[in-house]
Order: sequence, then C-alpha cells, then structure tokens
Amino acid sequence: MLVSAHPEITVALLGAGTVGAQVARLLAASAADLQARVGAPLRLTAVAVRDAGLAREGVDPALVTDDAMAVATSGADIVVEVMGGIEPARSLILAAMEQGSSVVTANKALLAADGATLYEAAQRHGVDLYFEASVAGAIPLLRPIRESMVGDRIVRVLGIVNGTTNLILTRMDEQGADYGTVLAEAQRLGYAEADPTADVAGHDAAAKAAILAELAFHTRVTIDDVHCEGIVGVTSEDIKAAQDMGFVVKLLAIAERTDDDGGVIVRVHPAMVPRSHPLASVREAYNAVFVEAESAGEVMFYGRGAGGAPTASAVLGDVVAAARNRVSGGRAPGESTYAQLPVLPVGSALTRYYVNLDVADRPGVLAAIASVFAEEQVSIQVVRQDGHGDDAGLILRTHLATDAAMARTLERLRGLDAVKQVLGVMRVEGEA
Amino acid sequence: MLVSAHPEITVALLGAGTVGAQVARLLAASAADLQARVGAPLRLTAVAVRDAGLAREGVDPALVTDDAMAVATSGADIVVEVMGGIEPARSLILAAMEQGSSVVTANKALLAADGATLYEAAQRHGVDLYFEASVAGAIPLLRPIRESMVGDRIVRVLGIVNGTTNLILTRMDEQGADYGTVLAEAQRLGYAEADPTADVAGHDAAAKAAILAELAFHTRVTIDDVHCEGIVGVTSEDIKAAQDMGFVVKLLAIAERTDDDGGVIVRVHPAMVPRSHPLASVREAYNAVFVEAESAGEVMFYGRGAGGAPTASAVLGDVVAAARNRVSGGRAPGESTYAQLPVLPVGSALTRYYVNLDVADRPGVLAAIASVFAEEQVSIQVVRQDGHGDDAGLILRTHLATDAAMARTLERLRGLDAVKQVLGVMRVEGEA
Repeated sequence: MLVSAHPEITVALLGAGTVGAQVARLLAASAADLQARVGAPLRLTAVAVRDAGLAREGVDPALVTDDAMAVATSGADIVVEVMGGIEPARSLILAAMEQGSSVVTANKALLAADGATLYEAAQRHGVDLYFEASVAGAIPLLRPIRESMVGDRIVRVLGIVNGTTNLILTRMDEQGADYGTVLAEAQRLGYAEADPTADVAGHDAAAKAAILAELAFHTRVTIDDVHCEGIVGVTSEDIKAAQDMGFVVKLLAIAERTDDDGGVIVRVHPAMVPRSHPLASVREAYNAVFVEAESAGEVMFYGRGAGGAPTASAVLGDVVAAARNRVSGGRAPGESTYAQLPVLPVGSALTRYYVNLDVADRPGVLAAIASVFAEEQVSIQVVRQDGHGDDAGLILRTHLATDAAMARTLERLRGLDAVKQVLGVMRVEGEA
Repeated sequence: MLVSAHPEITVALLGAGTVGAQVARLLAASAADLQARVGAPLRLTAVAVRDAGLAREGVDPALVTDDAMAVATSGADIVVEVMGGIEPARSLILAAMEQGSSVVTANKALLAADGATLYEAAQRHGVDLYFEASVAGAIPLLRPIRESMVGDRIVRVLGIVNGTTNLILTRMDEQGADYGTVLAEAQRLGYAEADPTADVAGHDAAAKAAILAELAFHTRVTIDDVHCEGIVGVTSEDIKAAQDMGFVVKLLAIAERTDDDGGVIVRVHPAMVPRSHPLASVREAYNAVFVEAESAGEVMFYGRGAGGAPTASAVLGDVVAAARNRVSGGRAPGESTYAQLPVLPVGSALTRYYVNLDVADRPGVLAAIASVFAEEQVSIQVVRQDGHGDDAGLILRTHLATDAAMARTLERLRGLDAVKQVLGVMRVEGEA
C-alpha cells in the first residue's frame, strides 16, 4: 500500500437514499483502494438526510444530521449531492461551491433545468462540477463525450436512457399485454414509482437528452428545449404492428445536428426500431446509447442505467476525479457552449413514420390515401393492406419526412371519407 | 468564438501514415472547434516521417522532416507518436518527455512491452502520457476504466479487440470457408497484412489485453504475462461444430481476477460464445469490450477498433486532454500499480471447454470416455454422439474446469483405444 504524502480529502454527502447509502458504504469498504488511487485518504465527514432518526445500514450514525445546509457549507473538499429535485439541491450546491467545495451530483433534473447556474458558479469559485451519474447510471458516457471524443465532431446521440419505460415496453412486447396492465405489474414489483409520471411521460429521458445534447454540441440545452412524448399512448396494437413488420417499440432520446449544421434538434419519443438493430436487443431496465461522430463513426455504450450500486459506482468515479484534482491542482473541464447552435423545433426533424389506418374496404381507398401522402411530399416506403369484413387495415411506412409534413398529411387523412380512424402513428428510427 | 487569453499549444507529430495523416488533417480542419474546447489554439509545428520526399495530403510540406529526433526534442507542448514499433519510438518518446513535452501515443506494442519505463519518465518529468488510441481505436475504453470506473472494483474485462481476426472468423462463419482461403481473401482486399502474424497469432490482442489488465487491476502486466493463442489453428470443423451447438467462434482477450482475489489471469484465445451473447453479433472488423465491476455490473463498449480516422479521433481526444492540462495546470492520472496482484498462469483459469472426438463406434466408448473426465474432476455438461459407419463423432461441452485438469484429461483421452483422434478443443465463454 502506498503511504500518502498528501493530507486527507474530506467528503460530505447530501442524501442517503438508495444511491447515497451505497456511496457511504463503498467509501468505507473500498477505503484502501480509493486512497491508493487518489494518493490521499478519503474521509466521509457528514451525511445530510431528511429524517436523522432513521438508522441507515453502513452509515455511521454520528455523521448523520438533518441540517443539509450545515453539511453543504461544512467546507468539505467534495460535496456529493444525491438528494435529487431542483430545490433545495440547487441552493445547497451553490452554497457548497461558495465554500470552495467541488461538487459531484447525480441530479439530472437540476442540470437539465438550470445547469448554467451550476457551471457558472463552479467556474467563478474555481471548483469542479462532475455529474456522470446523472445520465445512464453506471455507464461511462458523459466523460467519454466530454473528454475522449472531444477532438471529434459528434453528429448524433441516440439511445435508451430510461430503464422503467424500457422495462414496460419489453414486457408489452413479450407478453402482448397492454400498457396499463404492465405498468401496474411494474409498480407492484417496485420497478415503477407509485407516481410514474416522470418516467412514462418521458420527462426523465428528456432531462438526460438535454444534458447529452449540451455536452455533445457545445450548446446550451435545457429540458424546455426537448420535444418530449412519453409511452402512455403506446398501445398493444402498436406493439403488435411493430412485431408484424419486424420492429420493436423503444422510447428513444435523440439529439442531432441538422444536415446543414444549422442547428440541433433534441427529442424523446417512442419509436419503432428494426429487430436487427442493436438497440432492439436492449431489454428490461438496461440502457444503451449510440454516439455517432464524424471520425470515430458509431460508438455504443451499454449497461445498467439505474440502481443504487451502479449509480454509486459512477458517483465514486467522479469523487476520485475531483479528489485527484485536489491532489494535483487540476480542474474538471468546464461548461463549453461556444458553438451556440440554435435548438430547432421538432417540426424540422426528418424521420420515417409508421401509420396505421382503419379504412373502408372498397376500391380506390389506397389511391385516395396515396394521393394525400404524395401531395404533402411524404414518400411511402411500404404499404400493407388487410381486409376484414367492412373494415380494412392499412399500415404504411414512409421515407424520411418532416414532422410538419407528416402532421399536415395526418390532418388531411382524418378528413377523408375512406379513413375511419387513425389507429396509430409512430416514428421509425435505426433503419439504414 | 472564444477569444483565448492563453498562448498557443504546440503539437509535434511523429509519423504520418494512416493515422498520422488523419491527425494532421483534423488539427487543421477542426482548428476553430479545438481552440474553443481547449481554451487556446493548437498549432502543428513539425511532422517526422520516414521519407520526407513523399507528398502527404493535408500535411504542410514545410513542416515535414525525416529527422524524428529533432521533432521529438523540439520542445512542443505535446508530442504525438503514431509510428508504432518498440524502437525508435521508445527513445523518441523518452527524449520528448525529457524536454518537458506531454506525450500522446497509439503504440500498444511499446506500452505492453515496456510501459513502465514510459510511465516512470512521465512521472519524473511531470508530463502527461495518454494512450487511448492504443486499444480499440475509436472506442473510449481506457479513460472510462482509468477515470469513470476508478471508484469501483473491476473483476473482469472481456472482449474482441482485434478487427482483422474478427473479420476472418466472421467470414469463416458466414461462408463455411477454411482459414487459409479467408485469410488470402482478406489479404487481397487489404484487410489483413502481407505478414499477418501479429494479428492472427494473437500478439496484437495480447498487447491490448496487457494494457487493459494493468489499468483495470492496478497491477503491472506486460505482454509476456499474457497467455496467447491465435486463430491459426481454428478449423472450419470447429466453426461448424460451434454453429451446430448454437455458438460462434471469436478471438477473445480476457483479463480477470481469480475468485479468491489471489491474482489475475490474462489470456487471449479463440473461444466459442453463445449466439445469444452480445459479443456474437460483433461482426467484421468491429471491436467490443465488456467491463464487469462489482457495483456497476457489466458495461459494454462497442465501435470501430481500427482505421485512420477512428484512431485519429481517439488521438485527438487525448491531445485535447493534454492541452487542457497545459492550460489549467492539471495532470493525467499516472500509472497505478499499487495492487501488485500476482499474474497467474493460464493453468489456473477456470473455463468451460468444447471437445470434439473421433471415436470408434462400439458400445462402451462413451462410458470409457466419461470415466476419464470424471477421474480428472472435469464435469460434462452436454454430450452429442453421431454415428457414421465405423467412426463416430462425440462432441462434449464441460462445466467449469481448470486448464490443467483439461490438459490431463486430453492426454488420457489420446491414450484410449476408443479415441481415434482429438479433432478439436476450444474454450467456451459467455455462458450464464
């Protein structure tokens, strides 16, 4: 074991829930390894919790307090924030930085809502701000984007970044059950929250998409810039139609430059993905993200996107980085928004679409429908028509079209006599 | 665009082959972006090549020289070494560090043979040594292991790190052709070198395995510590047998802690992998690496493992990191071999095996063979017997066994009357 010439690095912890308790446990269990890797011992000095009376396995009760501001401003070398939520987390982080503490946080909501305030404070006070755990849990993703691929030009980030919705969609795909049934089962088993809105409405994925887009494109992006559709409207018919076409439904987070480099578009929505695409085999609560760069080509990262221990692993990596900087005098890369690309509305995004129509079963229907697509400049790739009595099903997949053109097409289709109902519309991603 | 308060960062380049030419091109093409990301302009000051008379696209002829030592000792902030080979690369890198230059290298052979000398020199002269491009080209892998996962305890690194052999094995699998035919085709198409030894004998993968093992386990590992078998002995019968069992043959690099944490084993060899395993779908010249850590679980990295532009992307990421450190006063994480785990011989590795025997087709043969396995404590998982005339084929897969026990078993099998020939033996990896 190395004998360190450096003084100890103090760590204060805000939050001792699923992640925080694991961070505390690992700081103790891996103390010797961490000391050798940092070049100085790490010492946990305080843990802020909501209810100080509650015992927490692996956390020394003497360190526990419910006075979070006292912990934040205790002057620790590193303050770890794993409480979540916008406030009081933001005030606590800002107060910690003002005391000269570097900050490690897993707080995607705060970063996506108001990251600029945190970056600016870190810059002003000359401290580090690390947040690898805020996106895709245990998967090293932000550091590779900010550091390993920083000499390249990233054109697209695309992936599955919410485990709960991926679990629900996986079960719908496997069991043929409808959304409500699968969600209820996931809640009963603890895989989905009692109030699942943040996950199923896509907000959690949208926050992560904003963070990824900002780092990839050196452009300020907040959650308000992200077009966000959740999985609440995904029906078992959509899943079935996807299966029939050799596709699977996934909730994707996508951040991309437009082809003319005139801006970036950031969106979260369900999409059909070919079963042969690597993302199709990302099942249950796993996450996977593709980063496409001009020189590197496509790089994929895959692993556990959530959970106490995996998230704590990412937090501890950041703690070691911040601690090493304390020892060596280095600094985390700061915010870089020099590119200032405009964030464009989703209407300008080019994607393929799946459209499922309930139509009258009579001659000329397909011709009428095809004319509408043609007049709106939406080119049809595949059509499949199934007659069943009076009704007929018509399933189409389009070539690349703008959201705006597709919206106009759908409006006109709804006005056609021959179209009884638009049963489903979904974007298609990942086709060559 | 940021107006930088920092002076320029100078970059000198050793080598202008496939990778070097791309590095030079990207430094020019991305100058504005790189300046904004670093906080100072990067300026290419010199390029050392073997034949200075040869024109190189994108490289200013005024910078080109064949005096590599002059370039190495020019006092540039960053010296990029992309010549490859042990010497003169090592002497040039050491001379550059002595002048106070940080070094970025893609030289896996040198790092795996004598990394300690480079690390030590970097430490002594207070300069950075980065080498992301040395393993798995464009895939961010070393930085994630050294930094993102540094708070965790890595137990295993397993992957496909040589594109040429993966391409050959993919074609053998797809075409049913034999090794020699596919190799000749790959050579004709430029995917394999005229002298393919470094790839097909596993040396390239072994160098990468040594680098990965050292970083993952904080233990000094050189290429001499790596058990290395190439793909030269893989037959179309092995591929066929793998297919029949639902497996595919891959050349794997594996570095793992032993279960009792008593040491590490590092090995490169062909292995059968279940077709359902994510590594089975890594085809052609792609690379993919699993890193398994105690808290993070399994994380996978996937992308292009070679090629001029992808490798240059990784080199430039390191150049930006080293340049940022010049600007901020930070330091790359140095070598960390504090754990000093013993590197154990492959005989102590526990793996499953596939064994293909040509046996006499008469009663009692299976019993005789099964007795030998049992007496050597090698437990059989699956047996398949195919009679064909006088001969019979017997294919077995074992449960976990040591290399040593398997070697004893094979020796005894070869001595049995009933066994005419051992047609194939291969390790099996990736089973749950």
